Amino acid sequence: MRAADIITKKRDGAELSDNEIEWLIKSYTSNEIPDYQMAAWLMAIFFQGMTDQETAALTMAMATSGDIVDLSQIPGIKVDKHSTGGVGDSTTLILAPLVAAAGVPVAKMSGRGLGFTGGTIDKLEAIPGFKTTLSHREFIANLLTYNIALTGQSAAIAPADGKLYALRDVTATVESIPLIASSIMSKKIASGADKIVLDVKVGNGAFMKNKTEAIRLAETMVGIGQFVDRETIAIVTNMEQPLGMAVGNSLEIKEAIKLLSGQGELALREVCLTLGSHMLVLGKKALTPEDGYRQLAALIDNGQALAKFKEFITAQSGDSTIVHDNTKLPQARFIQEVSSLEQGYVTAMSAAQIGYAAMRLGAGREFKGQAIDLSAGILMQCRLGQAIRRGQPLATIYTNDESRLEEAGLMIRQAVRINTQPAAAIPLVMGIVDKHGFHN
Amino acid sequence: MRAADIITKKRDGAELSDNEIEWLIKSYTSNEIPDYQMAAWLMAIFFQGMTDQETAALTMAMATSGDIVDLSQIPGIKVDKHSTGGVGDSTTLILAPLVAAAGVPVAKMSGRGLGFTGGTIDKLEAIPGFKTTLSHREFIANLLTYNIALTGQSAAIAPADGKLYALRDVTATVESIPLIASSIMSKKIASGADKIVLDVKVGNGAFMKNKTEAIRLAETMVGIGQFVDRETIAIVTNMEQPLGMAVGNSLEIKEAIKLLSGQGELALREVCLTLGSHMLVLGKKALTPEDGYRQLAALIDNGQALAKFKEFITAQSGDSTIVHDNTKLPQARFIQEVSSLEQGYVTAMSAAQIGYAAMRLGAGREFKGQAIDLSAGILMQCRLGQAIRRGQPLATIYTNDESRLEEAGLMIRQAVRINTQPAAAIPLVMGIVDKHGFHN
Repeated sequence: MRAADIITKKRDGAELSDNEIEWLIKSYTSNEIPDYQMAAWLMAIFFQGMTDQETAALTMAMATSGDIVDLSQIPGIKVDKHSTGGVGDSTTLILAPLVAAAGVPVAKMSGRGLGFTGGTIDKLEAIPGFKTTLSHREFIANLLTYNIALTGQSAAIAPADGKLYALRDVTATVESIPLIASSIMSKKIASGADKIVLDVKVGNGAFMKNKTEAIRLAETMVGIGQFVDRETIAIVTNMEQPLGMAVGNSLEIKEAIKLLSGQGELALREVCLTLGSHMLVLGKKALTPEDGYRQLAALIDNGQALAKFKEFITAQSGDSTIVHDNTKLPQARFIQEVSSLEQGYVTAMSAAQIGYAAMRLGAGREFKGQAIDLSAGILMQCRLGQAIRRGQPLATIYTNDESRLEEAGLMIRQAVRINTQPAAAIPLVMGIVDKHGFHN
Repeated sequence: MRAADIITKKRDGAELSDNEIEWLIKSYTSNEIPDYQMAAWLMAIFFQGMTDQETAALTMAMATSGDIVDLSQIPGIKVDKHSTGGVGDSTTLILAPLVAAAGVPVAKMSGRGLGFTGGTIDKLEAIPGFKTTLSHREFIANLLTYNIALTGQSAAIAPADGKLYALRDVTATVESIPLIASSIMSKKIASGADKIVLDVKVGNGAFMKNKTEAIRLAETMVGIGQFVDRETIAIVTNMEQPLGMAVGNSLEIKEAIKLLSGQGELALREVCLTLGSHMLVLGKKALTPEDGYRQLAALIDNGQALAKFKEFITAQSGDSTIVHDNTKLPQARFIQEVSSLEQGYVTAMSAAQIGYAAMRLGAGREFKGQAIDLSAGILMQCRLGQAIRRGQPLATIYTNDESRLEEAGLMIRQAVRINTQPAAAIPLVMGIVDKHGFHN
């Protein structure tokens, strides 16, 4: 086979065979095919798309390009969860102990963040002593004992995806549904998931800006799941404002504790319980999503969810007393309220700009390897639709870099639009994509 | 500026500015932009095309990426000619002395061939002693004295085009009209041409397989010429059979001598006189193409064209006695006739396959830097429409590699289709593209 022929075939709109895709990915991973040929191939995919068969073949070629985590020792159905990324999204922190408490094994590999805030690994590092890198043996041992373990994604997981993603990033080929879908699914499959629940976010704070595109992405990933025999369900959720009130690593840990204690922002709780209910159904611990939802709500109410979170922290050498005393989490030196200059109703919110402001305060990375200020971030004090008086706080900002306070305040005031009349509300959970397609 | 932004802009169908294109080509030539970003950009152009303004900017950016030959010392309008390449195409060998004899200065930079036969430089090397590399000083001196000079294209001419072409070749981005057009035009402009006559070939033996595409390519190049103030005319000619009878370096020199002596294949003569007549009009040595045509025919008839060819050979240290004694050209050891197994009319000919057979006999290169057998090739003995008896020769093959004889014979018999009824003839000169568009 010749890479140039495969590029030509894709360029001209023909379907590539499984063998061709496998050979291409294998040869690229072993540096036998140069970046420039892959770049041309990726751009051809941007324009010509991929069939379901091709997307599935690409997913499996990337998944098998490195190690596949062997979870066969763990009894039960391993259900993984993935979110396409948004602002103020601490769902993994909440779902992992919640679902584990319900009896579904949670074997999670997470990444560091690039963008608005840190990834789940960064957030957990806000907990003193928390160990985010487990050996395979520790990972399996914790799963057997506690039904939950979380570790940083090793470079041996889907290395082809890592290499391709870095190339896509600099060749304007990120925004392709089959490439996004296969990238996400390859990592989940390599991480050992039997079944997958996806949170596909749509809105100004998400990667997908409109509902049609979000549904297409969701359908593509659910389709891959069917092709490769990993049942997959996707929830399409609204990201027109930060999901929770907290945007920032330490702040999101606090918010997760609140949620697991039965308090906190309702939107975040709703998304967590919806995602979790489907994880329980896939994991055969609930008969229906409604049943799952009730079980999870009960686990929050009876304290078992929070107890599982403490157990999880302790199991990974963290200080679980933070759950009751969150002054032990990293604290920012500068805390300032941003008050409204206007009066009216919050009619729109740029989640992206709020995320960007959090990053500028130190909560996220502008480039790979950059240090994060775990205490920095934004705690929102208003929601879409809410009435606001002049002088009422819109948000509280946290940072150790005093020079960033003014800029962040300005950005938040710009990000929150206040009008005299309230706007129509957009539903939070916009629908579900499963093997029957999209439905509400 | 960032390369990724320019790729995105092109990918999304927006028009790039002259500055963006200039910066991209400059940075690529100086190795500041990696191949993989250019590959993605080229593939985006394959799908999105380029506006006339963009194509002109790309042409000038490539033309000015190296030296621009300064021909200001040479009086008169310098008219260059370029052919998009075909089989049995010795027009440059014929046109150069012919047009020079008519008073238009011929300052030509030619290349070596990759494909069926050698380039003009390879062909001229069949003449004993002929020097194909002139210094700039020799080039100018010969032009001033003889009105004709020809030299190999130096690496300093449009280096960006050379680098981009090598990349296109391995990334399936050759077949893009704006990229083909700008590549050709950039070299002509860097070679110092004031005006340009193009021979765009269409048919199975040419790069452009259909007339519509050929006209589009011609229009694009004529459009570039208008944009950058180098008047350009394109002749669209048919390449459904080898243009001349000879396919091979030494064989084509012999055919050129025959043509310049007033004999030889009529199709080749017709294309040469048509191209030449427009060169005379552009060079202001003829008022109309008809006038130019008559002048050139007269120069052949009165022996001045052949005399100029001899003068040209001598001026570049070659042995001009080959004109009267072509046994001094490289001779093949094995010469064999390929006879027809059938009886009827020649209804189709695969010029591409005949070219490929010539390459296999040693006349062309399969890869860069390969040695060429200057004596090898094919002399056709039949034309489209001709009646053929069983046993009558279709072609004569020449080679020094006896082992290739059988294969070549087989390929020629496959390439010439003989039917009981003659087919309708296709016109040789299909039309002209000038600033008024395409017309017959």
